[in-house]
Order: sequence, then structure tokens, then C-alpha cells
Amino acid sequence: MNVLTVDLGERSYPIMIGGKLTCSARYLAPYIKGEQVMVVSNETIAPLYLEKLLANIDVGTLDSLVLPDGEQYKTLDTLNTIFDALLERRHDRSTTLIALGGGVVGDITGFAAACYQRGVNFIQIPTTLLSQVDSSVGGKTAVNHPLGKNMIGAFHQPQCVLIDIDTLQTLPEREYRAGLAEVIKYGLITDLGFFVWLEEHMPRLLAREDKAVLYAVERSCHLKAKVVSEDERESGLRATLNLGHTFGHAIETHEGYGKWLHGEAVAAGMCMAAELSMRLGWISSADHARVVDLMKRAGLPTMPPDIAVEQFLRLMAVDKKALGGQVRLVLLEQLGKAVITADYGSDRLLATLSAS
Amino acid sequence: MNVLTVDLGERSYPIMIGGKLTCSARYLAPYIKGEQVMVVSNETIAPLYLEKLLANIDVGTLDSLVLPDGEQYKTLDTLNTIFDALLERRHDRSTTLIALGGGVVGDITGFAAACYQRGVNFIQIPTTLLSQVDSSVGGKTAVNHPLGKNMIGAFHQPQCVLIDIDTLQTLPEREYRAGLAEVIKYGLITDLGFFVWLEEHMPRLLAREDKAVLYAVERSCHLKAKVVSEDERESGLRATLNLGHTFGHAIETHEGYGKWLHGEAVAAGMCMAAELSMRLGWISSADHARVVDLMKRAGLPTMPPDIAVEQFLRLMAVDKKALGGQVRLVLLEQLGKAVITADYGSDRLLATLSAS
Repeated sequence: MNVLTVDLGERSYPIMIGGKLTCSARYLAPYIKGEQVMVVSNETIAPLYLEKLLANIDVGTLDSLVLPDGEQYKTLDTLNTIFDALLERRHDRSTTLIALGGGVVGDITGFAAACYQRGVNFIQIPTTLLSQVDSSVGGKTAVNHPLGKNMIGAFHQPQCVLIDIDTLQTLPEREYRAGLAEVIKYGLITDLGFFVWLEEHMPRLLAREDKAVLYAVERSCHLKAKVVSEDERESGLRATLNLGHTFGHAIETHEGYGKWLHGEAVAAGMCMAAELSMRLGWISSADHARVVDLMKRAGLPTMPPDIAVEQFLRLMAVDKKALGGQVRLVLLEQLGKAVITADYGSDRLLATLSAS
Repeated sequence: MNVLTVDLGERSYPIMIGGKLTCSARYLAPYIKGEQVMVVSNETIAPLYLEKLLANIDVGTLDSLVLPDGEQYKTLDTLNTIFDALLERRHDRSTTLIALGGGVVGDITGFAAACYQRGVNFIQIPTTLLSQVDSSVGGKTAVNHPLGKNMIGAFHQPQCVLIDIDTLQTLPEREYRAGLAEVIKYGLITDLGFFVWLEEHMPRLLAREDKAVLYAVERSCHLKAKVVSEDERESGLRATLNLGHTFGHAIETHEGYGKWLHGEAVAAGMCMAAELSMRLGWISSADHARVVDLMKRAGLPTMPPDIAVEQFLRLMAVDKKALGGQVRLVLLEQLGKAVITADYGSDRLLATLSAS
């Protein structure tokens, strides 16, 4: 097992990465402080891993809750079902919530942990590629609102993150590919060497070869942990992790949550960000083509669905990154280096939206 | 105007106390960072002070939202109406929420500020005695759940608190007296001199004489700020602020929110805590009588409603202060000194519940 650390002073925590980890409780025990645990999972993941996990946790009160599966359930209503369960089963302030599942389970369980009795302990066991390389690390938790994704949430760091790459073997192909979008993102925003490695190893990653998957997950977590350590509350640097996300969220909101997977929307969004960066003269058309090509090879969309330009703009404006009415975007200064800026020229943005 | 400081390092903030403050924007301006403000009030307070306040705030986007009045609306559903309004009116991360009203408005608006886009700025303008001396100071925010009060919430410190004691002149008598319960509490838990002052000045306080009210509010805020500065997240000392609250919450839950005012339930709860302390031999029967007598003179209940002992115990156990199933209580080691303990003997607790 490999261990990375998210360095946040007294709130620092480990990311433990390896295989066959969900079968072993010894990795979790030091991070469960009280005598109560509630494992939250979903109806897809629970039949695969829940019993194994529960059999290996030894506390006085051990409960579990299985949520319906899908982004459309990442709502205040579903959140409330977690509170109902915690209160009905008398969990107090010393309880630990464990999220076993993908990004939706992690985000909603983390938010429940942030709010239940004003904050209880929390452990992440992400089981999708997307959640392993992105949402489980960094303490962002949230639910959606009909008018925007992740609009209601909190920063709440977990006690630890346990990543078992074996769980990726049961992940549907489409979800696995969507996760690769975020992996590619790390190369684009901060590590050209990793981007080149991805260009070379994409066939092995698509075949889910252990060694390649382990390296990709570790490298992604390392890069994310580094950014989060430097800027926990997203005052600057951390915002570059949102490359493609302003476009992507607009796509998701337009289509209704759940139709496009998050990673798919972000993939198209990153291609749009690359195109706008090219129109600014920051990256070459060859660089732009490399971005689009790698997304295609990963089986990801490179264009948004058909959305009228005016509506696209409107959908982008409610994104959280809009500051005082002015939409700031994450763009590529060069391959491997992202910046956040409002200084791109609305004409170039319109041209990018029209071309897509 | 008098200014106290809640000392929390980089999250320190001022409590500004005086009269005629809601008419003047110059006190708030330094604490509004962006160009968007949403004032949240309720249908009782809004007709009295909302227009005056809005007329004195100068920002690009100035919105207001009027909630129904009452503890029964301190729910996730009402919280969601704040999110709806913020999103419909396109408030972004730089917005400031201002709570204009009592504890319910303050708690729910503060929680909305804690969660909206993972946290935005927040200002408290408490207009009831209870909220001025208690809930507006210290950063606790929450909504209720059918199975327990304040079960869902966050710690989220405001940018500033503005206390206009003139607003107390329009407060209904019953609510004013309920607020006095929390004022008396500070004397009981940490300041015998203040308790003696209250015994001497109760008639002036009941007559709402400016000078007496100002001193009582200031002293209460000072004592609360001191406790909060030393123990923001309630790991120990801060819990003593909950004197009477475990009993009180049980009463409120049993009666349904809104029938007993919070301060009334806490007043009866403090008398019960004093009685249990007497049964432990920690305070004399004369001290116990002083507590009960001062509550009576403030027009507050000194006994709970008729609740079967077993049910009372059940209602107490879901209180947040229950740790691992064992109910800890705040009791009086002496008048002016509270402690939190589970070491009171269940027989004495049963005797106290039976006697009440």
C-alpha cells in the first residue's frame, strides 16, 4: 500500500492507495475515533463491497444506509435521508460517517458529516476512477440545486481516504472513461510530463492494467493534494482544478443531471477551454489538437451538445466561479500550465461557443 | 456605540452595541466586501426595520427575503427558499447575507451563508434580546430536524454583529422575558457578581430602562465572547453555555417547536439543573431558591410541563451533548460556576425529573 499525505496542518490526512483494501479493516481502525459508524453507499456499490467492509469494522454501533444511485439524487432531500437515519439510530457527535461509492456518495456523505450536529468525522472510500482521483481528495462536499451544480456545500476534510484500485475492475466502461477526463486534466493544468505519459499509456489505462492504473491514480492524487495543500479554500491556485468545469457545468445543467456524466461534460469543456486558449494565441493549434486527440483516444466527447450561444452564456454565469457578474475561466497558458482569468475577450468566447 | 471583540485570530470580529444603529449604514459598510447583499428577515421584523436598513446599504445588487416568523420554520425547507432566492437573483461567492431578526432568522441565515457555494460572508443584526445576548455571537448556525433541535448546522463566524437595543422596545413582553433567561444564565455559569446585579436590577430590566438593558446586553455579550474565544468548537468550556439546555430541548421537542419559547424552556431547565446540583450537595437549598426566585421575578417558568419521566429521559438522550450514549449535563458547582459532567448519579436525575 502506498500512502500520500494531504498537508493541511492539524487537519492533514493520509490517502492510502492499493489493492484488496476494502477487505481489511486495519487500515481504517486508527481513523475511527468513537464507537459509532454509519457507512453510506449506493444501490450499485453496496451489493459488491458493503458486507465485506462492514464485516471488518469493529465498533459498538455499526449502521449502513444505501442511497439510490445517480447524480439526480445528489439533493437536499437525499441529504435529509442521511440525517433521518443518523437521528433514528441515535448517532451522536462522536460518530464517523464512511462514504463507500463514487463522487455522489462521497460529496453528499461528506456534506452530511459537515452539517450533522455541526460536524462529525468522515472517511472516504471512493470506488470510481473519478472520485478516486478527484472528488475524494480535498474536502469539497456539496449537493446540487435545480439552478446549479454543487451550489450548497461545505469544506470538510476527511480523516483519511482509502483508495482500492481493485474496485475499478467492476466500474462500467463509460464511467471509467469519464474518470480519465479528470486524470488528463492534471496533466494539462500542472504536469506536462504526466500528459505525455498519458499519451503513451492510454491503451494500457483503457485495458485497466494494474500498474498503469496505480500510477495514474497516484500521480493524480499527488498533484491534487499538492494544489489543495497550497490553497485549501480555493482563493486562487485551486481554481485551476476547474479546467473545463465552467463549460462542463453549463452542459450538465442544460442536459439535466445524469444524462452526461460529469467527466464527459468536463472533457468537452476542456476541449473548449483549449480552443479558447488557442484563439488567444496561448497554445498552438497542434497543442489544441493533442488535447482533442487524447480525449478522443480515451473515448470522451470533445464537443458540447447543441446549445444556443445565449443560453450557454446564461448557464455559465451561475457557475460558482463567476465573481461579481464577470465570468472567470480556467485556460491554458501552455500545455501543463493553467491560469484563471477574465481577460480573454468576450468575442473570442462567443467564437468558441459558436464553433462548438 | 460600544464595541466588543470576539477574539478568534484571523476570524475575529466586532460586536457593535448601541441605539439607533439600524438607521445608519456607516457601521456596516466596512464589513460588506462585495457588490451583492441579501438581507433575510421575517414577516414580523421586516415591516419595522427592513426598509430603513435597505435604504442605508449601498451596493450594486441589494435583495431581501422575508421568511415566515417562528421556530417551526427553522427547517431545511425554509433554508432552501434562501438558496432559491440567492440563485434566482444570481448571487455569487462574493455576496454577503445579512440576518435581520431574532434567533431563528440568525441561525438559518447563518447556516445558509455557511453552505451557499461552500461559504459566503455573513452579518448579524439581532433584534430580540435572546439573539442579542446569545445566538448572534459565536458562529453557531443550524436548522431543526423533527427528531431534534439544531441537529443540522455549521460553525460559521459572521463578519460583524450589530446590536441595536432600540429594537427591543418593540419586542413582545413574553419574548423579552424569555431573553432574560439567557442573561441570567451568564450570571449562573460564570459571573456571580452579574447574577447579584441582576437580582438588584430586575425591575429596571423588566421596565426596559436603556441603561440597565445596555449593561445587561453588553455584559452578556462580553461573557459569551470570552467563552467562545477560548473554545470555539465546543470541546469543553463552551458546553457550559448550555446550562439548562438539555432539559430545555427535551421540553421544546416534547411540546413541539414554538409552543414554549426557547428561553422559557431553558429557564425551567436551569431550575432543574439547579435542583440536581442541590441534590448533589454542590449548591445549598438557599442558592437553589435564589435561582428559582430570580426566574419567577423575570416572569419565567420554573417547572417543566407534565412529561413522564421515561419519555423525558428519551428526549434528553438525542440531545447533541450525549456522548456515546451517556448523557452529560451542565450543572452548578456553585452559583457563578458551571461544570459539565456525567457524574451525577442516575438516581438523582430520576428524582429531579420526578419532582418536576
